[in-house]
Amino acid sequence: MTLEELVSYARRYGFVYPGSEIYGGLANSWDYGPLGALFTDNIKKLWFKKFVDEKKNCVRLDSPIILNSKVWEASGHLKSFNDPKVDCLNCHNRERADKLVEKASGGTIDADGMKLEEIDAYIKENHVKCPVCGKEDWTPARTFSLMFKTSQGVVEDSASTVYLRPETAQGIYIAFKNVWRSSRQKVPFGIGQCGKAFRNEITPGNFLFRVREFDQLEMEFFCKPGTEEYYFEEYKKDCVNFLKSLGIKDENLTTYDHPKEKLAFYSKGTTDILYKYPWGFDELWGIASRTNYDLTRHQELSGEDLSYLDPETNEKYIPYVVEPSVGVGRLFLAFLLNGYENETLSDGSTREVLHVHPALAPYKAVVLPLMKKLHSDKATEIFNDLSKEFTVSYDETQAIGKRYRRADAIGTPLAITIDDETLNNSTVTVRDRDTMTQDIVKVEDLRDYIRRKIEF
Amino acid sequence: MTLEELVSYARRYGFVYPGSEIYGGLANSWDYGPLGALFTDNIKKLWFKKFVDEKKNCVRLDSPIILNSKVWEASGHLKSFNDPKVDCLNCHNRERADKLVEKASGGTIDADGMKLEEIDAYIKENHVKCPVCGKEDWTPARTFSLMFKTSQGVVEDSASTVYLRPETAQGIYIAFKNVWRSSRQKVPFGIGQCGKAFRNEITPGNFLFRVREFDQLEMEFFCKPGTEEYYFEEYKKDCVNFLKSLGIKDENLTTYDHPKEKLAFYSKGTTDILYKYPWGFDELWGIASRTNYDLTRHQELSGEDLSYLDPETNEKYIPYVVEPSVGVGRLFLAFLLNGYENETLSDGSTREVLHVHPALAPYKAVVLPLMKKLHSDKATEIFNDLSKEFTVSYDETQAIGKRYRRADAIGTPLAITIDDETLNNSTVTVRDRDTMTQDIVKVEDLRDYIRRKIEF
Repeated sequence: MTLEELVSYARRYGFVYPGSEIYGGLANSWDYGPLGALFTDNIKKLWFKKFVDEKKNCVRLDSPIILNSKVWEASGHLKSFNDPKVDCLNCHNRERADKLVEKASGGTIDADGMKLEEIDAYIKENHVKCPVCGKEDWTPARTFSLMFKTSQGVVEDSASTVYLRPETAQGIYIAFKNVWRSSRQKVPFGIGQCGKAFRNEITPGNFLFRVREFDQLEMEFFCKPGTEEYYFEEYKKDCVNFLKSLGIKDENLTTYDHPKEKLAFYSKGTTDILYKYPWGFDELWGIASRTNYDLTRHQELSGEDLSYLDPETNEKYIPYVVEPSVGVGRLFLAFLLNGYENETLSDGSTREVLHVHPALAPYKAVVLPLMKKLHSDKATEIFNDLSKEFTVSYDETQAIGKRYRRADAIGTPLAITIDDETLNNSTVTVRDRDTMTQDIVKVEDLRDYIRRKIEF
Repeated sequence: MTLEELVSYARRYGFVYPGSEIYGGLANSWDYGPLGALFTDNIKKLWFKKFVDEKKNCVRLDSPIILNSKVWEASGHLKSFNDPKVDCLNCHNRERADKLVEKASGGTIDADGMKLEEIDAYIKENHVKCPVCGKEDWTPARTFSLMFKTSQGVVEDSASTVYLRPETAQGIYIAFKNVWRSSRQKVPFGIGQCGKAFRNEITPGNFLFRVREFDQLEMEFFCKPGTEEYYFEEYKKDCVNFLKSLGIKDENLTTYDHPKEKLAFYSKGTTDILYKYPWGFDELWGIASRTNYDLTRHQELSGEDLSYLDPETNEKYIPYVVEPSVGVGRLFLAFLLNGYENETLSDGSTREVLHVHPALAPYKAVVLPLMKKLHSDKATEIFNDLSKEFTVSYDETQAIGKRYRRADAIGTPLAITIDDETLNNSTVTVRDRDTMTQDIVKVEDLRDYIRRKIEF
């Protein structure tokens, strides 16, 4: 499936629309429609379930998008959360300079961390042309901050300058002590959060892959120095398992360990889990072993003691941190790409089908009265019961075969047909999206049946 | 319970902490800690369940915080989403001028919609003094925009000026046609969304009541002109029922119908549901009958046809809209205030207990091994099973009575004790938070038992 096909599919069924479309849009911004909103909600729920709620030693947090600006001074974002940019003097096209170099080199150069002078030299020596107008007339490379800036309070002066968080992680660090004190947790323990992050990307693109506003799922796992390698390895396994147990195929995944010489001075390691997008393997999930760098920086700048006192050994230390971090939009993109199939059936006909784990599917089941006139009362009764526990849709128009196809196309795992058997014998026919086989199920057993089918 | 007591309680147990606290905070910003994050997540879930997912004709949407700026031109926010402010020339204290007048009048004046000159005249005639320094030396009243402004894209010019949405509603209006077309819905139908909204309030305050960044739950219900009164009345009932069925006491609720002469020219009515906060009855939920004003404005400015073609009657019209709108933080505040009790027991001792509906409780149950050494393996096994379906906590330290008290204080409806009976007969003791009575339950029936208890 190409990216264009995916965009069209996502729009047609109401997964994703171009944002602000009636006003001509807004640079690569997107609305999650009815199905996309349910799907991404399921992603968040399952992440919280596996990474937080099922663990005795992990808890949630929900901190604001706008934090005290000292947070970004301590974290280094104000100083160094930049990308290099160049402008075309001829057509005013703007490019991310490192990406331009990488493209021009045919992927042989990794420009991440290249100095501005090195970028300028490469562009000059290799006569890199503007991809828009074809000229070779660039400004020198300059750094560009990815931080969205705004003003809080009622006077616009520097004291009131605040930023939209570019990551949710720092909100966790600065609340570490409050959480530790109030939650009765002991190190090692983790704090997970989901929320919007904003990055003023020079060139957003590739549909949901690089957007300026996105939901992030981040876990900061606080552990005793010396144990971080163990948890780093554990989280790498947990993240891959999460993806595979939700149906991501082996061949669509690989990992990339950042080489030691590319790591920040404080880092003990970073591994990216890569997904095979239409443009090739690219970032999906990052797992970073960040030592006590962030807590130490916040301790220095705030003057607050952020060390942990081990209640058993009486040792005092600033915990080390392992951080798995993933964007909801990228997970969503991966699940759609991985699950979509234009399947040829044994009779030669084709169907669109989204093979996604039932726990991710927007609707767990669709309720289908065979004949609108005869069966819709009973079908409504069943819809009303099932929708108390599951997200369920209802479809009473057109032939049953067409309705099956619509349910297949949006990944609904179970299609429940209400017919005369339902009225007479209190049974329904339940068709499976993937196998297209049918079960006869008693109405009273339906909830249990669905519950078993969608378990994760 | 006073507001100060609530703030202290919320902090102590990890519901809410002051935001950015290690840096001295940030004007009335708050972190939702482990319990608050679970609680507000439950509020959102239950709202979606009752107002969207259980209805055949309601769907979800998740649109961005940053929209094309024309949206705010059409909606009128750029022009008129302002509050009047005055500054004290002596101490530089800033006040919302309408609130200052209302306070000075002892509540006899409703200053909403008062002209700036009228405000100035009132302040002068009544010698209104600065509540901070006591002087009477004010600037003239001026309007102040509540919109947070930032710059998107890579050049800071007016073309790239964007705003953080002050409400989620407009994102729904501009996606109306995409949703209608892709979701197979027919008017009347509703689109519900939850997300952050931002208002640069002059004087945020009253804990979570007035903050600059908050989660909003909004439903836009699109209906045929002439039917709006019916849906307006329905939604008023539904919202009150939602609150009452989640345990809000009658005496804590009242409603306020905005008088006709105060309504915007296009409005057919607005009713506020008020909650009895510690400072008196104040806004909780607003239900507005907004006619086709917003869709018409967007149609005018965008040039897109936003009318609806009724597939049965072939009538073409721009739908009318009924909009129930509520902030998650205010609901949370109301549930906490309504449910908290410092209860005197029959033996004269007291306990802190949070009487909240089990569906709202952060943890549905706490798993308690009676003796850590003997029962924690079995307790962990039970925790692992239950946490697959419910948010459950685990507590193995101190005497069982103390552990009960901790669970009561944070509103955990069920306390499950694992003891020798569990090892020998596979039964557990389940204590009820409110009645403090105990049931003996088979381990294999526990999930069903909890499911029944938390149903909503």
